[in-house]
Amino acid sequence: MSFTLHGIPVSRGIAIGRAYLLAPATLDVPHYLLDPSQIDDEVARFQSAQATVQQELDTLKEELPDDAPGEMGAFLDVHSLILNDTLLVDAVVKLIRERRYNAEWALTTQLEVLVARFEDIEDEYLRERRADIEQVTERVLKALAGAPGIRHVVAETPRDDMIVVARDIAPADMLQFKSQTFKGFVTDLGGKTSHTAIVARSLGIPAAVGVAQASLLVKQDDVIIIDGDHGIVIVDPAPIVLEEYSYRQSERALEERRLQRLKHSPAQTIDGTPIELFANIELPEDAKTAVDAGAVGVGLFRTEFLFMNEEEAPEEEAQFEAYKRAVETMHGLPLTIRTIDVGADKPLDSHETYETAPNPALGLRAIRWSLSEPRMFLTQLRAILRASAFGKVQILFPMLAHAQEIDQTLELVREAKAQLDAAGLLYDPNVKLGAMIEVPAAALTVPMFLKRLDFLSIGTNDLIQYTLAIDRADNAVAHLYDPLHPAVLRLIAMTIREAHAFGVPVAVCGEMAGDPTATRLLLGMGLREFSMHPSQLLQVKQEILRAHLPDLERPVQELLAATEPEEMQAALARLAVA
Amino acid sequence: MSFTLHGIPVSRGIAIGRAYLLAPATLDVPHYLLDPSQIDDEVARFQSAQATVQQELDTLKEELPDDAPGEMGAFLDVHSLILNDTLLVDAVVKLIRERRYNAEWALTTQLEVLVARFEDIEDEYLRERRADIEQVTERVLKALAGAPGIRHVVAETPRDDMIVVARDIAPADMLQFKSQTFKGFVTDLGGKTSHTAIVARSLGIPAAVGVAQASLLVKQDDVIIIDGDHGIVIVDPAPIVLEEYSYRQSERALEERRLQRLKHSPAQTIDGTPIELFANIELPEDAKTAVDAGAVGVGLFRTEFLFMNEEEAPEEEAQFEAYKRAVETMHGLPLTIRTIDVGADKPLDSHETYETAPNPALGLRAIRWSLSEPRMFLTQLRAILRASAFGKVQILFPMLAHAQEIDQTLELVREAKAQLDAAGLLYDPNVKLGAMIEVPAAALTVPMFLKRLDFLSIGTNDLIQYTLAIDRADNAVAHLYDPLHPAVLRLIAMTIREAHAFGVPVAVCGEMAGDPTATRLLLGMGLREFSMHPSQLLQVKQEILRAHLPDLERPVQELLAATEPEEMQAALARLAVA
Repeated sequence: MSFTLHGIPVSRGIAIGRAYLLAPATLDVPHYLLDPSQIDDEVARFQSAQATVQQELDTLKEELPDDAPGEMGAFLDVHSLILNDTLLVDAVVKLIRERRYNAEWALTTQLEVLVARFEDIEDEYLRERRADIEQVTERVLKALAGAPGIRHVVAETPRDDMIVVARDIAPADMLQFKSQTFKGFVTDLGGKTSHTAIVARSLGIPAAVGVAQASLLVKQDDVIIIDGDHGIVIVDPAPIVLEEYSYRQSERALEERRLQRLKHSPAQTIDGTPIELFANIELPEDAKTAVDAGAVGVGLFRTEFLFMNEEEAPEEEAQFEAYKRAVETMHGLPLTIRTIDVGADKPLDSHETYETAPNPALGLRAIRWSLSEPRMFLTQLRAILRASAFGKVQILFPMLAHAQEIDQTLELVREAKAQLDAAGLLYDPNVKLGAMIEVPAAALTVPMFLKRLDFLSIGTNDLIQYTLAIDRADNAVAHLYDPLHPAVLRLIAMTIREAHAFGVPVAVCGEMAGDPTATRLLLGMGLREFSMHPSQLLQVKQEILRAHLPDLERPVQELLAATEPEEMQAALARLAVA
Repeated sequence: MSFTLHGIPVSRGIAIGRAYLLAPATLDVPHYLLDPSQIDDEVARFQSAQATVQQELDTLKEELPDDAPGEMGAFLDVHSLILNDTLLVDAVVKLIRERRYNAEWALTTQLEVLVARFEDIEDEYLRERRADIEQVTERVLKALAGAPGIRHVVAETPRDDMIVVARDIAPADMLQFKSQTFKGFVTDLGGKTSHTAIVARSLGIPAAVGVAQASLLVKQDDVIIIDGDHGIVIVDPAPIVLEEYSYRQSERALEERRLQRLKHSPAQTIDGTPIELFANIELPEDAKTAVDAGAVGVGLFRTEFLFMNEEEAPEEEAQFEAYKRAVETMHGLPLTIRTIDVGADKPLDSHETYETAPNPALGLRAIRWSLSEPRMFLTQLRAILRASAFGKVQILFPMLAHAQEIDQTLELVREAKAQLDAAGLLYDPNVKLGAMIEVPAAALTVPMFLKRLDFLSIGTNDLIQYTLAIDRADNAVAHLYDPLHPAVLRLIAMTIREAHAFGVPVAVCGEMAGDPTATRLLLGMGLREFSMHPSQLLQVKQEILRAHLPDLERPVQELLAATEPEEMQAALARLAVA
């Protein structure tokens, strides 16, 4: 019988194939209290399992195929870090010694402690890292059980129509998917930044994650359609549905081939206006993906990756190396590094007990947190500045809203430069400094920013969230999150207009920039710089190539002047065909 | 030795006197397991203590002096409700029967459960109600102990310079403070809406609450100064400090006498422009306070009081009676009733388990929650509409931000009217409907509201919070909460201007309206309706009587055009002397 499941769309495209179920790793974990005489042996047994897993990870990394996605190596490094994290190891040894738990019990107990910490994290990226901890723990449990296999076993006679359906997929399991042909991925767990999502996007394979209970409801060899644009999974579809999706799929393939031809053509509108397309990246390794996709630079390099799974902020050297690696990959194209954008409620300071903020999104986060931790912030600024000696680096500050915050930030940049001067370390003295416009107060006081900074970048996701007073991650109100609310459109248009009048570059780096249905709207508002996930670049470029700016201005002006939903609908309809 | 303590300013004015310490109610609570044969007797003992306390509360209410503040009766009613709440009583009996706890242990155990529920509540008013539960529990514990006194014993030979210092003060204890002369109140616990705060304001006695550990640090008969404007308590002040505050106190007294003379003069500027001053109230009984203070109506009647300490939303009849009582007290002056303004995370639905919202302030609250619970919302709308048959009622909806939300709300009002028509119940068919402007998206799309509604009311507290992305209740960022941020001023000015251009009345009902230092600013922005706590009315009226509108316009325009802090400071300075 046909049925449909809904999940989170994370990698676009349509996949049609047969379910290939990955057996979930259900290890029976024994629980028993040790005799005091057994304790030393049990600690040794745990450490030996840890060593086994370390060797597995090292082997996997060495054997990484040349064509494996760039993220893979980084994922394996993260798993090594977790495996040796004192938060995991010391606590487990302590539980064995003090409570006389057997190693498996100690490990699952500490897993629960660590996982609970991640529950309340607001930042989606960090929240997803919970899966890493679970996967590493699972791997150690397997080693303790003496289980030989370190990967899920994939079909012995691979077919070419397999859609992987699993509870979750570990990075190491993802590795083999490169060598075999898979049509798509469906997982019960995961979000937009889970490994499955990231790898699927980099491989260009349709995927839906967070499809609750998919691995229980789908049977081996069921025919499946994944609509990766909408996160829909259709199981055992009716013939007419299958036909419809096959048709759409071939249309998409045609479209995809056409898009690939756009890779090296410059992004410019019919009337000849050049548009700059930048990439948003999350890891230094992504810089290559950005360049390969034809981006003219990186408009947003998130630095949260450096702060995850760490007890303390990373050292200056480690940060510097990461930034340098990214900027060197850019070969002279600009790399815009955003300073740390998490809140005081993240798991970084695991030894201190912060009171949980009643509303973390309205609390001590992003630049507010950086300004409250000047030692940590200066370290990051020095590391970024030092990387600027190796290419074109720009620094972007998140969540600024007050004149004194901007002034304080600029003062700390001056201080970081003075410290580097004193140490005789090199940096680009003219490195450009910019602000995210993502708080309504910022969008309403753009001139204050223009006088102080070199460029602006509009973060539409947060701007929408605060303007509408809606937390999009809260299911109870997610339906009210509306990027086309007239208030949102006016703030974006106003920011672009004021920046251009002042001669200051302005980009949009929120999700709207990568949404091809919003391209004409943003062009009509005057936007000339877009920054998005590399996988979205060609589609947006195609929209740009088809746009004639003089035709867009009038419907966009009508849209911005509209006060009623019907007027807005009409203006949007005119814009779509302009 | 002199020292200074800081707390929350809740009742203005300066008090100088000697500490009168109320002994904290430290009851030794016995804990023991019952023999099964004792269980029935123990339940009976608990029920007898409950009956004793009920009788005490009834007696207190009967003996309420005629001049007791109006809130007193309501507080005693709330305590009676709690005493008979099944959440308290059934759980205690269950703990006695099933776990064989003695009554005291069962009571304190359940107290902890109930109190924990209040911990995470965002709404300050509801959070404060936790103290009620503690006070009722304490009263029952005393009855179980056979303690004779139901009140703290006050000095046998009352002096006329006593400043009460206590950990917290129960409403019943407050009662006797009316018959004796007290100079001021200092409590360790409490917030702006604690009983002590409300009663102190209604008695016009200076008070500071939330003064951590005051009752431990202050000794009996210490000389104390309370600066009620700033929440400062100076213990054992130096002679020069005492002299300074005595001087200020006599200045205040002079000022107070002058203010009292303004009570019956109309609020109008030097140039003859009439200004309307409304009151914000929280209980039906406050309506009298509002009229007595010379308000021309109630601009904001919060209805959260009806929903506190209740397992389910209150019945239509109970609501109707409360609204009717308030509107009858108004004798024809308008009463603006705001529909429920709490979130799904409040303790109302104690039997359902809502997931805690990650950011309650950006979640399902106010009108969003009402629209998601149409049965509850229709009940409130019918109750309000029925009260409109007894006076001039207006309905105010909190937190609207989308056209479809407004339309949905209006549709439910029509439905409520149709239901009343069908039942043959009376209401004012022309009852005016208005919206709070408190979300940035609303302030940016005022015309959408003007087309649909009869009046607007700007809620500056939330508008500031969302515009700046700052939770003021979060100490880590409270310093960034700035009512004079240029973005905030522009949104307020824009809302007032657009509403007036459309001929729709607009008020400000947030804290800015009651702050006399903001009066000239709001007048200069064109505001003609202010709604505030009744105690703030005369000071604001005085500012109005001293203002000459034509002189205010220019500095306010300069202020709104300013982009730099220095320009703003200069414009504010000119406004202060204009």
